[in-house]
Amino acid sequence: MSDDRRLEDGAAVLSPQIVADELPDVHLEAPGIALALQDAGISDIRYPIVVRLREAKPQQTVATASLGVEVPADVRAVHMSRFVEILNDWQSRIGVDTLPELLADVARRLASNRASARFDFPLFLERRSPASGGRSLLEYRCSLEGELHPEGVRCTTITRVPTTSLCPCSREISDYGAHNQRSSIEVCATAAVDAAHALDFPDLIGIAEAAASAPVYPLLKRMDELHVTMQAYENAAFVEDVARLVAATLQRDARVSAGRVRVVNEESVHAHNAYATISWPV
Amino acid sequence: MSDDRRLEDGAAVLSPQIVADELPDVHLEAPGIALALQDAGISDIRYPIVVRLREAKPQQTVATASLGVEVPADVRAVHMSRFVEILNDWQSRIGVDTLPELLADVARRLASNRASARFDFPLFLERRSPASGGRSLLEYRCSLEGELHPEGVRCTTITRVPTTSLCPCSREISDYGAHNQRSSIEVCATAAVDAAHALDFPDLIGIAEAAASAPVYPLLKRMDELHVTMQAYENAAFVEDVARLVAATLQRDARVSAGRVRVVNEESVHAHNAYATISWPV
Amino acid sequence: MSDDRRLEDGAAVLSPQIVADELPDVHLEAPGIALALQDAGISDIRYPIVVRLREAKPQQTVATASLGVEVPADVRAVHMSRFVEILNDWQSRIGVDTLPELLADVARRLASNRASARFDFPLFLERRSPASGGRSLLEYRCSLEGELHPEGVRCTTITRVPTTSLCPCSREISDYGAHNQRSSIEVCATAAVDAAHALDFPDLIGIAEAAASAPVYPLLKRMDELHVTMQAYENAAFVEDVARLVAATLQRDARVSAGRVRVVNEESVHAHNAYATISWPV
Amino acid sequence: MSDDRRLEDGAAVLSPQIVADELPDVHLEAPGIALALQDAGISDIRYPIVVRLREAKPQQTVATASLGVEVPADVRAVHMSRFVEILNDWQSRIGVDTLPELLADVARRLASNRASARFDFPLFLERRSPASGGRSLLEYRCSLEGELHPEGVRCTTITRVPTTSLCPCSREISDYGAHNQRSSIEVCATAAVDAAHALDFPDLIGIAEAAASAPVYPLLKRMDELHVTMQAYENAAFVEDVARLVAATLQRDARVSAGRVRVVNEESVHAHNAYATISWPV
Repeated sequence: MSDDRRLEDGAAVLSPQIVADELPDVHLEAPGIALALQDAGISDIRYPIVVRLREAKPQQTVATASLGVEVPADVRAVHMSRFVEILNDWQSRIGVDTLPELLADVARRLASNRASARFDFPLFLERRSPASGGRSLLEYRCSLEGELHPEGVRCTTITRVPTTSLCPCSREISDYGAHNQRSSIEVCATAAVDAAHALDFPDLIGIAEAAASAPVYPLLKRMDELHVTMQAYENAAFVEDVARLVAATLQRDARVSAGRVRVVNEESVHAHNAYATISWPV
Repeated sequence: MSDDRRLEDGAAVLSPQIVADELPDVHLEAPGIALALQDAGISDIRYPIVVRLREAKPQQTVATASLGVEVPADVRAVHMSRFVEILNDWQSRIGVDTLPELLADVARRLASNRASARFDFPLFLERRSPASGGRSLLEYRCSLEGELHPEGVRCTTITRVPTTSLCPCSREISDYGAHNQRSSIEVCATAAVDAAHALDFPDLIGIAEAAASAPVYPLLKRMDELHVTMQAYENAAFVEDVARLVAATLQRDARVSAGRVRVVNEESVHAHNAYATISWPV
Repeated sequence: MSDDRRLEDGAAVLSPQIVADELPDVHLEAPGIALALQDAGISDIRYPIVVRLREAKPQQTVATASLGVEVPADVRAVHMSRFVEILNDWQSRIGVDTLPELLADVARRLASNRASARFDFPLFLERRSPASGGRSLLEYRCSLEGELHPEGVRCTTITRVPTTSLCPCSREISDYGAHNQRSSIEVCATAAVDAAHALDFPDLIGIAEAAASAPVYPLLKRMDELHVTMQAYENAAFVEDVARLVAATLQRDARVSAGRVRVVNEESVHAHNAYATISWPV
Repeated sequence: MSDDRRLEDGAAVLSPQIVADELPDVHLEAPGIALALQDAGISDIRYPIVVRLREAKPQQTVATASLGVEVPADVRAVHMSRFVEILNDWQSRIGVDTLPELLADVARRLASNRASARFDFPLFLERRSPASGGRSLLEYRCSLEGELHPEGVRCTTITRVPTTSLCPCSREISDYGAHNQRSSIEVCATAAVDAAHALDFPDLIGIAEAAASAPVYPLLKRMDELHVTMQAYENAAFVEDVARLVAATLQRDARVSAGRVRVVNEESVHAHNAYATISWPV
């Protein structure tokens, strides 16, 4: 070990350029197997981010992120630290409208033709209790996915909306009551043409909540509980019914080129779930 | 590197004793800080096990296990590989009745006065649908915990029982319907005196299921669905009601020296849960 | 409520046929929106299963399962309870060779042209410690996925193999040591032509383990630890290297029509992961 | 159903007081079983919060929260919606210094003598890369726990610190290399006397990081990787060594009345973990 590398408690910060120049870089070697990899990078990195929304103020939240690039057949490995630098640079402006620029930056700084990015994060929207009018915040687990190809950018927005579903069969056959449960509506929408056409997260959330037997709320006083109990009973729906309603709404939207809806009922009479999935184009 | 250690594809299996004798063992050194550790060992090891039940035939399942011992102030580290050997030896006979012997084996083979063991595993019991009589298997997530002390063995059996709960408030205030949901009843019972007094898993499961608004079943035909829908409606219960009923039953049982009940409702009108907890002795 | 439906403690089990005949069936109604759903069914059901392997004896384990069918545009909802009956009937013979028959049974009993099945389960294989020869069981998280289409059956086998990876860059630039970590190799292989050509789980596991810096073992005595420490050091590999090696092996196999390899390093010098992904055909 | 309760799209928001007065309140009934419950409330509610730190600026993050109160033997159930109102009121000022006031508010608004609160949230601190000096943010999973009793407030701060550990045994017996891995150091400290003596999260993080073989960093350029690789090799430590070092530091701190340290190594040569635990007073 050369002296200048010896570790010391009060290690002086060396010039990165000087040290980098003297260190070998095995990433640039030719790989043993000349095969291109679609995607390599970092994943499961947790970072605070600010999500930019189109029609609401920016929201500070915490993301689990993934960033990657294509690895050509003649490059052994990518420089993973650059993804962390990019994430650090971009953390205050993540959103459907900035995604193309972010992807272009990834591709440029990693010298690649293809780049990918994914951010999973909780988004909170204010909900007003249906009868009392009380205000509280409800979490929607969202994902923003992007891919830069030579042909353009593919941008997909995803939300998972917690709702209530009430079983039409149980209501019909029972003399009183009807089983109901939490139901998660996952909606994925890929933007037509480019990211400028992407549906923003609140758009997706509104479509999903409108299709459920009833929305859920963090804050329900007794008068609100009365409201949602009867609302759900009046709007009994199977997972299939909800999936169709959400899909039909999205399929009419010219901004969506590809979509996927998955509704999962956490059945209150079972320990397992019921699901319905539809995706398009087929 | 001596030649006999060089790695080869078809490496001959050497005599463990010979090699072990020539390798230094830093575990036996004096630690830098002379502090005893209550518990050190292996955790999160997945292993197939056979669970021995008192009144049903043995059940093959898969456990996440943890085994440990006390580390005295003058020992640096434990030999972790021995726990894997013990787990491998005992995998076919895990249960409340074999736990004291297993713990004694851990203590003996690790030369310690105190030993701990924990097994988390799914147990499946046959359930008969309430109206159709159809048969299916329901999962109960169980845990077996044991500690060997100089004074004896502390054995705790734990189950988490999926059930349905129906809200008495929602039923009372609504003109029709009532929100209901999955409710998990966690029951922990520590055996009085010794493990021979431990309640076995099916005992705990029966107590919990009887306290719910209704049990859940994997298999429900329409006639069964009618049955459980109305059963839940007739047996509306808050998390507090269910926790009290389970606790009262266990507190009357002389075999239980310490207990804990936690009921968690996965509220269908919220994305969050409601819970009630009681433990004793206080 | 008619008297014969009143709930009693000792409720007689009624004839399913009689009761079913008198209960309305809202599943069969025309849906409000005439849209076909690719897949609807049950998910996250936990069940004990026996996995049939081609070249090893059947293995009792626990699965998280999902079964579904296509829902035509003129059917409102599927009868979910039938999936539970099918799972119960098939639990003792799950495997690549029985999958086509299972899917045909799902399609027949749900009167559908398309069916899907997925089983996620731990598989345990005996591992012999490299120097001491000790025996222990290592868990491999496996998945069996199948889809029945009018054109045939698509069968995919998936395993996630825990291994060690050692960083070539760290080894090259450091005077001593090299960071290494757990690395998970996920391998998915879709069978060409039909399920008879599917690679069985042990095949996939062998291919993945051979590509790592070193395998992991539950049981390592000191002489084994010496072996794997040096084996990993000698076989330094980036995630990209490992992904290419596994993919190259699978791409040469005529039994595989489509594949996907994803290697994830749980980097010991970071709290985040590095990954490399390759899938084909492109 | 009375007309004024009928659900409409544009439902007018009624006066909560008027409606609440006319709705029966079954929570206030006498319970069927006169047993006190230590704790009942809401859990797993996700909410954006601002964490107040003593020596750093407030930090916006996302919490999973739990709030509860004691339920006396003569009260059937608590009013769960009040916890949501309290959480909403307090979201912008969560921290060790505000916890006693928050708990007093919970007790007052729920009319109880005992209250509990728990917040689990990610905290991000800037880390400077050891050689290049690059800046990035590292996540620390923290928890703030409080209990209000008639005798006072018990406040516990908890962090889980991701670090690197390198095995002293592997280093000693191997001719080259040494296995190393992610190691999580969980530190829990209960404040002596009252919450004013609580250690804040950054204090706990500093103590844990100093005890590891090496810290982890999000951003490591090659010169940094060289640094941490050799730092870990020079500071080889068993889980037992790390647990003792952290515990010894905390046990000397008069502000800590009770503590617990748990170190978990995600062993790179195994698929299971090694752990060491120490808690005091015994």
